[in-house]
Amino acid sequence: MTPGRDLARRLFREIAARTADPPGVTRVAYGEGEEEAHTIVAEAAQAFGAERRHDAAGNLYLVLAGKDRGRVLLVGSHLDSVPHGGDYDGVAGVLMGLALMADLAASGRTPPCDLAVVCLRAEESCWFPYSYIGSKSALGLLDPAVLDEVSRSDDGQSLAAHIARLGHDPGAVRRGARLYEPDRIAGYIEPHIEQAPSLTDADVPVGLVTGIRGSVRFRRIAVTGAYAHSGAEPRALRRDAGLAGARLITEMHEFWDRMEAEGRDLTVTFGEISTDPAEHGFSKVPGFLHLCLDIRSEEPGSLELAEAELRDMAVRIAGETGCGIDLGPRTNSLPAPLSRRMRDCFEEAASSRGILTLTMPSGAGHDAATYAQAGVPAAMLFIRNRNGSHNPDEAMDFTDFDAALTVLETALGDPRLIAREATVAA
Amino acid sequence: MTPGRDLARRLFREIAARTADPPGVTRVAYGEGEEEAHTIVAEAAQAFGAERRHDAAGNLYLVLAGKDRGRVLLVGSHLDSVPHGGDYDGVAGVLMGLALMADLAASGRTPPCDLAVVCLRAEESCWFPYSYIGSKSALGLLDPAVLDEVSRSDDGQSLAAHIARLGHDPGAVRRGARLYEPDRIAGYIEPHIEQAPSLTDADVPVGLVTGIRGSVRFRRIAVTGAYAHSGAEPRALRRDAGLAGARLITEMHEFWDRMEAEGRDLTVTFGEISTDPAEHGFSKVPGFLHLCLDIRSEEPGSLELAEAELRDMAVRIAGETGCGIDLGPRTNSLPAPLSRRMRDCFEEAASSRGILTLTMPSGAGHDAATYAQAGVPAAMLFIRNRNGSHNPDEAMDFTDFDAALTVLETALGDPRLIAREATVAA
Repeated sequence: MTPGRDLARRLFREIAARTADPPGVTRVAYGEGEEEAHTIVAEAAQAFGAERRHDAAGNLYLVLAGKDRGRVLLVGSHLDSVPHGGDYDGVAGVLMGLALMADLAASGRTPPCDLAVVCLRAEESCWFPYSYIGSKSALGLLDPAVLDEVSRSDDGQSLAAHIARLGHDPGAVRRGARLYEPDRIAGYIEPHIEQAPSLTDADVPVGLVTGIRGSVRFRRIAVTGAYAHSGAEPRALRRDAGLAGARLITEMHEFWDRMEAEGRDLTVTFGEISTDPAEHGFSKVPGFLHLCLDIRSEEPGSLELAEAELRDMAVRIAGETGCGIDLGPRTNSLPAPLSRRMRDCFEEAASSRGILTLTMPSGAGHDAATYAQAGVPAAMLFIRNRNGSHNPDEAMDFTDFDAALTVLETALGDPRLIAREATVAA
Repeated sequence: MTPGRDLARRLFREIAARTADPPGVTRVAYGEGEEEAHTIVAEAAQAFGAERRHDAAGNLYLVLAGKDRGRVLLVGSHLDSVPHGGDYDGVAGVLMGLALMADLAASGRTPPCDLAVVCLRAEESCWFPYSYIGSKSALGLLDPAVLDEVSRSDDGQSLAAHIARLGHDPGAVRRGARLYEPDRIAGYIEPHIEQAPSLTDADVPVGLVTGIRGSVRFRRIAVTGAYAHSGAEPRALRRDAGLAGARLITEMHEFWDRMEAEGRDLTVTFGEISTDPAEHGFSKVPGFLHLCLDIRSEEPGSLELAEAELRDMAVRIAGETGCGIDLGPRTNSLPAPLSRRMRDCFEEAASSRGILTLTMPSGAGHDAATYAQAGVPAAMLFIRNRNGSHNPDEAMDFTDFDAALTVLETALGDPRLIAREATVAA
């Protein structure tokens, strides 16, 4: 047990207690809970002489001076949560950075370059329906329109208004102001609980992440047919929106089978499926079906193939069923490959300490994707976690947190960890 | 134009106006709207010297004396409607009976046996979720438990309470009391708007019905999987309830294809399809799907085959997807063949008057099924109708009503129409 591990345990409990919203915790982005967590972390870091800094968007940096003051290694994640979320999503990354800093301070060691524990804003898109607001702002990459046009789901106030309300500077965000220029950032490391049971299933405490899957998303697919009597309508005249939608779901999974057989990375998820409760009925052919679809892959080419297949399939199934299939608005995110060099450092560090690791993609999005796409070497360590994330039952064992911290602390001794590539990480 | 046709036009308008509930009409079974319609019809029938009678359940009979007073020919349907229903469902059958009576009275003709215009209660199962309450009561066949256990959807009061409240006799219904013994009933004729567009599509005004499809119904199919992150959950661990349900829908339609290729009568309808709005999400594998399923056929053997296929398929798909598929409670109704003899009379009558007809099954259930199954010769005439039924847009042309009435009036001159078979109609 080290001072950093002690501190992390204490702060996990304190943050959970002070942002409790049973069941679980709620920390609204740019809201009370997120502010509270920022304050707890900042106060703890003061004990190690860390400097407290904010960028224009209110992202928090707790900076311990290193040997090379010209560069900074960022370790952190986000402190907002989904409504009634769990104790570990986001918090684990920030507290691992803080634990690393505490152990460095306790041992009197100076990091090779500045070390900043970073608390990024607004990562959970349930609050502001836009991805990576904190990291995009930090890198001067936020589309200025987002400041005015994206409003918080609970109060309808704009992002700009929330940034200003907390004393930060939306005007500077709009101009792309940055606290750290990207080429000064030695790397961005985001430890995070795994949001699926791969590590639990493999009985391994730590995951080494190859990249973050990108996505193509259709949140409002409308399948339109015609309501008709279930027993009386002749089959040739039916336009069954439920059947058309079911075929789209089934056939997109058959496409996934084919992609998987070719060794391609893909996920296909229809998360919402619903006839219209105001119109549907037990003895009616359904005239409408709502679907949403989330396609993800580490490979841009696989996303393109899947989208092309979807569009062809929708036209064909619509024709065969007499229905209309309107895919509606499309959003997307690009796959983000993480730094192979940093991952190799973690792998060797783990191996030298006898810690088992599993190499895997991240199916969920994380701020690390923004850094990677901006050419900053980025890495993620996954911590074994039961029961998924975004729910009060997230279950990370502290011994697994300790194992990941050991990997990080050991890798920090490897000069290659911050031997930054000249170009985008590959 | 005849007095009966004039009267029908007037009463269609009067009933619609006095039970209006925009959009459309609402006539609650054993409620205000149904009572109002009963009163309008009963008062109109008094002008022809018809006797007004009720049975224990409050079914209304307006009886014109015929040459043979020992037998009665019933012509009618029901006067309740779905909420915000249309002007013709049910009403058309009663008003055709009344128009027939008006024309007989105007021409001074006496029918070959007693003619009763019958207004059956509670046909629309949206009010009391039980089929054919009126006709089953009329024939002394209502399961007594239904009186106490089935309550009206709008007020929760039992069927017995509603029957008593209107001054009728639930105790006598319980004992199986009947106004007419089945062997006294020469036939039951139910004219009805077609609830599908077959006649419209074929450009034919009148349908001759071969039989009423029976059904096997599963109103609460529960597909249970596990919620998981759409991008992070490894495919092998997924238990996608949406996919399992979509496959059930798709494969039951493929089964329908095979049955159709064998020339078997079948319909398959999943009318409600829904993930759980309280739990589902755009980026979650759905852990639950609700379905309901209505299977219909004129052939008992086809219903049995379909149910067996469904049960096998549910087990197989559950196994392949890692989900549970609970088919839940099952209800059913038996197919009811209508009288071939009466249909032949209608066909010859139509032919002699130059009226085109189409021979077809009834996919929807009607009280005629109860009479047919009780061994009473039963027949149905369908009237062309656009826009389906159970909605405010039902659209029957009066000229098509007139054509069906002409078929009925002409057939009444054929002694075979009431030459009752000794056994169940075939």
